[in-house]
Amino acid sequence: MSQKIINTDDLAFLLYEMLDIERFTQFPRYADHSRDTFDAAIELALKVGAETFAPHNHLCDADEPRFENGKVVIRKEVSEALAVLRETGLMAASQDYERGGMQLPAAVAQTCIGLIKGANVSTQAYAGLTIAACNLIMAHGSDEYKQRFAEPMMAGRFFGTMCLTEPHAGSSLADIKSRAVPAGDGSYRISGNKIFISAGDHELSENIVHLVLAKLPDAPPGVKGISLFIVPKFLVNEDGSLGERNDVQLAGLIHKMGYRGTTSTMLNFGEKGGAVGYLVGEAHQGLAQMFHMMNEARIGVGLGSVMLGYTGYLHALEYARERRQGRPLKERNPESPMIPLIEHADVRRMLLTQKAFVEGGLSLCLFASTLVDEKKHAQSAQERDDAAGLLDLLTPIVKSWPSQFCLEANSLAIQVHGGYGYTREYPVEQFYRDNRLNPIHEGAHGIQGQDLLGRKVSMKDGQYYQGLLKRIRQTLADCAGEAELKTSCGLLGAALETLTGVTDALQSMRKEDPERALANAYLYMECFGHVVVGWMWLRQAQAALRGLKQGGERPQAFYQGKLNTCEYFLRYELPKPLALAEVLRNADRTTLDMPEECF
Amino acid sequence: MSQKIINTDDLAFLLYEMLDIERFTQFPRYADHSRDTFDAAIELALKVGAETFAPHNHLCDADEPRFENGKVVIRKEVSEALAVLRETGLMAASQDYERGGMQLPAAVAQTCIGLIKGANVSTQAYAGLTIAACNLIMAHGSDEYKQRFAEPMMAGRFFGTMCLTEPHAGSSLADIKSRAVPAGDGSYRISGNKIFISAGDHELSENIVHLVLAKLPDAPPGVKGISLFIVPKFLVNEDGSLGERNDVQLAGLIHKMGYRGTTSTMLNFGEKGGAVGYLVGEAHQGLAQMFHMMNEARIGVGLGSVMLGYTGYLHALEYARERRQGRPLKERNPESPMIPLIEHADVRRMLLTQKAFVEGGLSLCLFASTLVDEKKHAQSAQERDDAAGLLDLLTPIVKSWPSQFCLEANSLAIQVHGGYGYTREYPVEQFYRDNRLNPIHEGAHGIQGQDLLGRKVSMKDGQYYQGLLKRIRQTLADCAGEAELKTSCGLLGAALETLTGVTDALQSMRKEDPERALANAYLYMECFGHVVVGWMWLRQAQAALRGLKQGGERPQAFYQGKLNTCEYFLRYELPKPLALAEVLRNADRTTLDMPEECF
Repeated sequence: MSQKIINTDDLAFLLYEMLDIERFTQFPRYADHSRDTFDAAIELALKVGAETFAPHNHLCDADEPRFENGKVVIRKEVSEALAVLRETGLMAASQDYERGGMQLPAAVAQTCIGLIKGANVSTQAYAGLTIAACNLIMAHGSDEYKQRFAEPMMAGRFFGTMCLTEPHAGSSLADIKSRAVPAGDGSYRISGNKIFISAGDHELSENIVHLVLAKLPDAPPGVKGISLFIVPKFLVNEDGSLGERNDVQLAGLIHKMGYRGTTSTMLNFGEKGGAVGYLVGEAHQGLAQMFHMMNEARIGVGLGSVMLGYTGYLHALEYARERRQGRPLKERNPESPMIPLIEHADVRRMLLTQKAFVEGGLSLCLFASTLVDEKKHAQSAQERDDAAGLLDLLTPIVKSWPSQFCLEANSLAIQVHGGYGYTREYPVEQFYRDNRLNPIHEGAHGIQGQDLLGRKVSMKDGQYYQGLLKRIRQTLADCAGEAELKTSCGLLGAALETLTGVTDALQSMRKEDPERALANAYLYMECFGHVVVGWMWLRQAQAALRGLKQGGERPQAFYQGKLNTCEYFLRYELPKPLALAEVLRNADRTTLDMPEECF
Repeated sequence: MSQKIINTDDLAFLLYEMLDIERFTQFPRYADHSRDTFDAAIELALKVGAETFAPHNHLCDADEPRFENGKVVIRKEVSEALAVLRETGLMAASQDYERGGMQLPAAVAQTCIGLIKGANVSTQAYAGLTIAACNLIMAHGSDEYKQRFAEPMMAGRFFGTMCLTEPHAGSSLADIKSRAVPAGDGSYRISGNKIFISAGDHELSENIVHLVLAKLPDAPPGVKGISLFIVPKFLVNEDGSLGERNDVQLAGLIHKMGYRGTTSTMLNFGEKGGAVGYLVGEAHQGLAQMFHMMNEARIGVGLGSVMLGYTGYLHALEYARERRQGRPLKERNPESPMIPLIEHADVRRMLLTQKAFVEGGLSLCLFASTLVDEKKHAQSAQERDDAAGLLDLLTPIVKSWPSQFCLEANSLAIQVHGGYGYTREYPVEQFYRDNRLNPIHEGAHGIQGQDLLGRKVSMKDGQYYQGLLKRIRQTLADCAGEAELKTSCGLLGAALETLTGVTDALQSMRKEDPERALANAYLYMECFGHVVVGWMWLRQAQAALRGLKQGGERPQAFYQGKLNTCEYFLRYELPKPLALAEVLRNADRTTLDMPEECF
């Protein structure tokens, strides 16, 4: 199987050598599993990705979904690939055995999802949204709704969506206008307009289960008045058979720069009197419930962004090895043979940057997925709370860091390809266009920065933030004795002290002037993210050094590459956002004070 | 005239208050001109841009040139717009009166071209390539060729191309394989394959004049053996009428990520025995001659990149002022009215960054174009040499700095628009795709970095580099007494000292180990470029302060905005590339030492 989705050595290294996910087999839920079953699932996902998803990735970009005769027409390769995903059981990789799932740890299930994303992020989205919506119903829905809606979703017969955004409100969910009126029979009648609804209409599944945010007549104003409803495209009878078409209409398709294979829609609910909807859980709890899905979606965005960056990097690496161009600087004979691009220092810089970003990003996302397992299944309540808190703290980083830097990796992959990279005859430009969505959806960078500095860092009096610092300092202490890691420890240690100084200054400022403290929250997040990814790189270097010294499973050059890339990241990349430490420490007012009329 | 191409206050400020281009009316060549004639040309270009070029910018992106029945089919709006450009005389804005030109200074002519680029960079390219090719023939061609080929190009009847790249050689021009054999009658027979030839075939003009790099049979190896030939699509009889179709065949169209309106072609020369070509100037001088065009093209790339960034910024600014979303941080009442996006600090940060990049980039490009005027027409030989040397030194910066940072501005314009910005229903995503070409063509970033550090900085024992430092220090000295500029002077002065320290260290290292000294040339260029643009910003602030104090022509808020943006650039942007000063000073070997097998 030839594939440019993942370096399988790297994946195994991260899962088993850096993160030691074999330890999860000791959790009772995963007792039947072993490294063999983990690997079997991962190999299956990679095979499905490479053989079934990747081949039509470009086709669905060039021939995007169309609206024809009242229906959304999507290339047949999409439904064929999703059928394979369904048949292999990968759509229910993390679900319980008793519901037909594989009951795999999140770290393994996320890996499988990531491999499919790397092969074809647009087709995967139909499955990904379904899994997320299904998980939400499983977490908050009644047993009746679990059976009627979630189980057919796990089986891949129904697909799911999340309907949050409205045309006038964008990210401002407090201002949604969609309404839900009790129908007297326990159901509700939903009306309103939603926009940017991915997979909002199509013929790929028997039914579509929309999870819709709307307000009840007695709702308090703002986000406290939001409730969550299940609104199926076709009503579902008690025996599970499909009933009438519900009052949900496709108002139009949105044409995007990338991610074109995933249809993006405007939906009108209730134009004919009200769409039948079912309240999930309690009234007015919609935002908190949706955040269950949003947090999962945010980690999914980060992972998708990493995988787009990763496949771009592998394409650039192969091109740089095969394409011969130019000569070494010292070579004066113009008739000497041309050398491969990778031998030019500037090309190696671009490849190293990509490697640092995508392997750093992947280690971050997989680490986050181990926290999902630990928060649910670790032995002690303390461990579970630590993991849950750390995951909450890191979610804005996991969402936004890859969206920024793995997108940058995609740009560098184009640059390595030169003029060819800018053409649609090569795949790297599509990866770049696809990835440009990720800094926007599921909470744009600005919102993530506010979340990190305005909420997460100070959560429980900074308990989880302090927990993170403790973990990073522990890694530094563990590595202190290793001569090969001395430079890296020095660089990360200094950056950590800068970050803590900045954090303390901003936390003081928040008491005095919250607006000023939060004005540069996005830039703070860049520093925070780079320190966290620097930590991930030091942990990789630590594991690589162990592999080198103890003769690990992978080639020596692989381990050496991890050590070099760790130093590269800490030396070349870490300093850039931290160059604004003084601006942050002073809670600089330049952006705040720029009068609107001066633009 | 409603347009979002330029802030006309800003343009007038840069041309007249910062760069004082009215002084050019004292040069004998421009003696008939005045600020009124400059303004008339600029207004005309803006009107043509806004009314004739901008309206089909999106249409040619969605409906790109196609190959049908042996011809390239391009939307009719393109030829209509180019006809308007021809009829207004703007295609010959800088040419002599006696050849039908307007004899405008380069600073004004470039401004006019820039406004058309900002309106529609793809359609402008047909004219821009023609102007550049025409100028090359005017500089190096015989009188016969000037008359037969260049004059119909000035009149817009013939269009031009530059044919450098070949499929196997990319940027490595030493390795081109195209051949030219003397035909015995003074002409040559050309054969070979060229790729990425913009405007290489179309039906927009009566004829296409290809400027082709090829090698004569007795050519020395490498770049020293390259000659330049005129190869017209249709032969041109002595009376100027068109003759037979020449042996140049369109081998295919290339489909790009953006810039789609400009057809990009593969051309085969000499498949039927040899295309008739005419040697320009002396044999084996082709590269030097082509660099005449390339240097102009590189400034053109920088300007195009700025203008794409600029129009994106103006779109984002309007959107941020009109779109209401969310509430101030302090506002706890969810029923209070939503505020315009621009009132959010993070949105203001994104707008300030765009403003700093695009207005900084425009000042850089316009400053470079004043050097074009000075190097040709300044009174003393010393002044002319100073200007020519500084322009040479700055060309890699003028080409690459906007390509990087005004592209980043386009990304921020998308981000300000949120989900809407990612759709093709809004124009900002096209600007971003179009602009992504600019870091690649006319010499990619890596090549520009090598040119700057490997050639330009040390040219004539560093004379022009020292001249630049002197100019920057002079500006710092001139501003030293102004309290309002104290912070900015301090920030720029410190950065300048860092840059000179880095430069000195790398110049010493070059004597010892050139490969090591040049390994990070691209990162050096980032520092250099930011210091130069920082200088441009200080000069803008200096002029703005004068305007504030003396009651200049523009609103007070405009001048105040310049002061704020100068501080923003120096405080928030300048530190980032300079954070790698230590890596550069040490001529760090990390990228050089990464073994290929470790990737």
